[in-house]
Amino acid sequence: MAATATKPVVKVAALCGSIRKASYNRGLVRAAIAICEESLEGVEIEYLEVEPLPMLNTDLETPPDGFPAVVEDFRRQIREADCILFASPEYNYSIAAPLKNAIDWASRPPNAFAGKAAAIVSAGGGFGGALAQFHLRQVGVFLDLHFVNKPELHVNAFQPPPKFDDNNGDLIHQETKDRLKQVLLSLKNLSLRLRSN
Amino acid sequence: MAATATKPVVKVAALCGSIRKASYNRGLVRAAIAICEESLEGVEIEYLEVEPLPMLNTDLETPPDGFPAVVEDFRRQIREADCILFASPEYNYSIAAPLKNAIDWASRPPNAFAGKAAAIVSAGGGFGGALAQFHLRQVGVFLDLHFVNKPELHVNAFQPPPKFDDNNGDLIHQETKDRLKQVLLSLKNLSLRLRSN
Amino acid sequence: MAATATKPVVKVAALCGSIRKASYNRGLVRAAIAICEESLEGVEIEYLEVEPLPMLNTDLETPPDGFPAVVEDFRRQIREADCILFASPEYNYSIAAPLKNAIDWASRPPNAFAGKAAAIVSAGGGFGGALAQFHLRQVGVFLDLHFVNKPELHVNAFQPPPKFDDNNGDLIHQETKDRLKQVLLSLKNLSLRLRSN
Amino acid sequence: MAATATKPVVKVAALCGSIRKASYNRGLVRAAIAICEESLEGVEIEYLEVEPLPMLNTDLETPPDGFPAVVEDFRRQIREADCILFASPEYNYSIAAPLKNAIDWASRPPNAFAGKAAAIVSAGGGFGGALAQFHLRQVGVFLDLHFVNKPELHVNAFQPPPKFDDNNGDLIHQETKDRLKQVLLSLKNLSLRLRSN
Repeated sequence: MAATATKPVVKVAALCGSIRKASYNRGLVRAAIAICEESLEGVEIEYLEVEPLPMLNTDLETPPDGFPAVVEDFRRQIREADCILFASPEYNYSIAAPLKNAIDWASRPPNAFAGKAAAIVSAGGGFGGALAQFHLRQVGVFLDLHFVNKPELHVNAFQPPPKFDDNNGDLIHQETKDRLKQVLLSLKNLSLRLRSN
Repeated sequence: MAATATKPVVKVAALCGSIRKASYNRGLVRAAIAICEESLEGVEIEYLEVEPLPMLNTDLETPPDGFPAVVEDFRRQIREADCILFASPEYNYSIAAPLKNAIDWASRPPNAFAGKAAAIVSAGGGFGGALAQFHLRQVGVFLDLHFVNKPELHVNAFQPPPKFDDNNGDLIHQETKDRLKQVLLSLKNLSLRLRSN
Repeated sequence: MAATATKPVVKVAALCGSIRKASYNRGLVRAAIAICEESLEGVEIEYLEVEPLPMLNTDLETPPDGFPAVVEDFRRQIREADCILFASPEYNYSIAAPLKNAIDWASRPPNAFAGKAAAIVSAGGGFGGALAQFHLRQVGVFLDLHFVNKPELHVNAFQPPPKFDDNNGDLIHQETKDRLKQVLLSLKNLSLRLRSN
Repeated sequence: MAATATKPVVKVAALCGSIRKASYNRGLVRAAIAICEESLEGVEIEYLEVEPLPMLNTDLETPPDGFPAVVEDFRRQIREADCILFASPEYNYSIAAPLKNAIDWASRPPNAFAGKAAAIVSAGGGFGGALAQFHLRQVGVFLDLHFVNKPELHVNAFQPPPKFDDNNGDLIHQETKDRLKQVLLSLKNLSLRLRSN
């Protein structure tokens, strides 16, 4: 259909590395979903929970290609997405365990991430998660992900002005929302360019 | 007793990032324990299981300093050790989730690792875990760990000659055992130097 | 012109981080040039010398946009290329100074690399330069480069069978040549996809 | 002599990775020297110029152990120091070429850095050089350097309040001076602990 051809929809799978309730990083994902619904045409974000996944243990696999049901479901959702949005808290200058765990499950052969575009956003203290982002980019080489370079978004959640609502982790800072929208536009653009041949 | 004063014992807490049964990295820890019992005086290794720890979620903490019992127990064992031996499998060019999870729990304030010496060993395909080792070293800056630099030990488990027994992950390669002993000697030495004032 | 449309030529600027005469990494660049002339249609490689560049010193710049002639010339050649091939020796687990120096000059605003595709190849001891490659990938985030992920090419030059002619650094190992060709094909492919809109 | 035993002097070799005149990073070195002269007993800093060193080229070596005179002189000064202070500007998220160049020369066998303590300070935009610091720490594994972990010092030179005098790069911010002093105390302390045994 002509309309489809001119308005391709980019499907984004969004993962958040924090499983605490009022996580700022989950707040970034919710804000991204709202932006796509309100003002960014052609991008649909599906939020995938990482909490239900068991801790990585390849003894749980039953070859060939047999994974626990919750893992298989997660892998299918990654496969069906065009690209990935990582919201990655930083713990000890690196990726948080719940996110690494989800990534490792989805990467088990056949790697569900292969060839997709991706973007990383993060919030936290210090450099706002930037060091974890660089570790995640190295991980992405093995996953064969193509990351958006600009703009980068790493939000220092504790420097004024307030960025998040402390009770629920909602993003409340307009400038950060604008920058987040730019990240999503870059992700859409890169995803469409990589899709072409 | 005078003899004790001249022969200080270095207590090592050993963590393995893989929880599968026949893990090569657990095999490295078992080999390290055997070496200390048989031929390396003054070093005692205690192996700490990371599998029982819940996935990191700071909502599980009850301030001040309240952690789930299994976490508190793990943190105490880290605190009581003089130094740390990490056996770190590599997944997707970085640290495996079960190890990162254990580290993140023990690092929660007050950080149980602060000021200790540490060494990393690893086994796997590719570069034998070397890329995960460098991510772990960056993590160690925040943890305030002092890592042994030489020798490095990253064992390619799939290049001939055979290094491990496939059924149980036991280290069977003498040259690797010798190198592992050198790592342990360096760890003992660094630990004793850091202890001095 | 129709012929141009169906046979786009991808122009590659190739940089080598070693300035010694019999450099293996320069050998990789020569082999890449030969492959493009003999059997890889639509890719043209131009080798850019990094040796004539002065050591980075921003005092040598005369704003706006004024650089020493040799630097300006180098920057222009980077700008005119579609994509970049880095041949990066590893020194001390990171990028060699002559390559970092060339990159830093070309990155001075306005950044000559912005938005291009890139690939990295390397030869050396140890992991064949792989650790330097990961540092270069981090540099590439700031440069806004999009790197080829697969295949990776890091040649251990000292493990049998012989890979290079020791007298002149020529690549003599067919399997490595084949893999190098795959890297160049990936670079061509990624460059064309990124060019589209 | 008893007095010497109780007041050991720690000799520091300081390297700065920027060769522009008004470098903030050189300003950090000058401030460190002033602190040691004024208020930090037992630490002597010698500033080593990296500018005179030729661009790394192993063809300039004449085995065994023959280096150009300026290189040999630099290597000797590194060898004679107890520990190293790196002032490392960040270019493109990594180490600046002039510093990497100096490090690579001093690391050529026999490695002049082996076993020493070290600290890194940096100033710049963005994260104040923190990303370059982590690359330098990875380099330090090969060099066999033992880095101070705490405190870290990466000064954002462009955020208010002013940190440096723009004309000459002098550090003018008392809080940063205090933190720099803490880095130097940690370096002294680590150096003395490693010296023991």
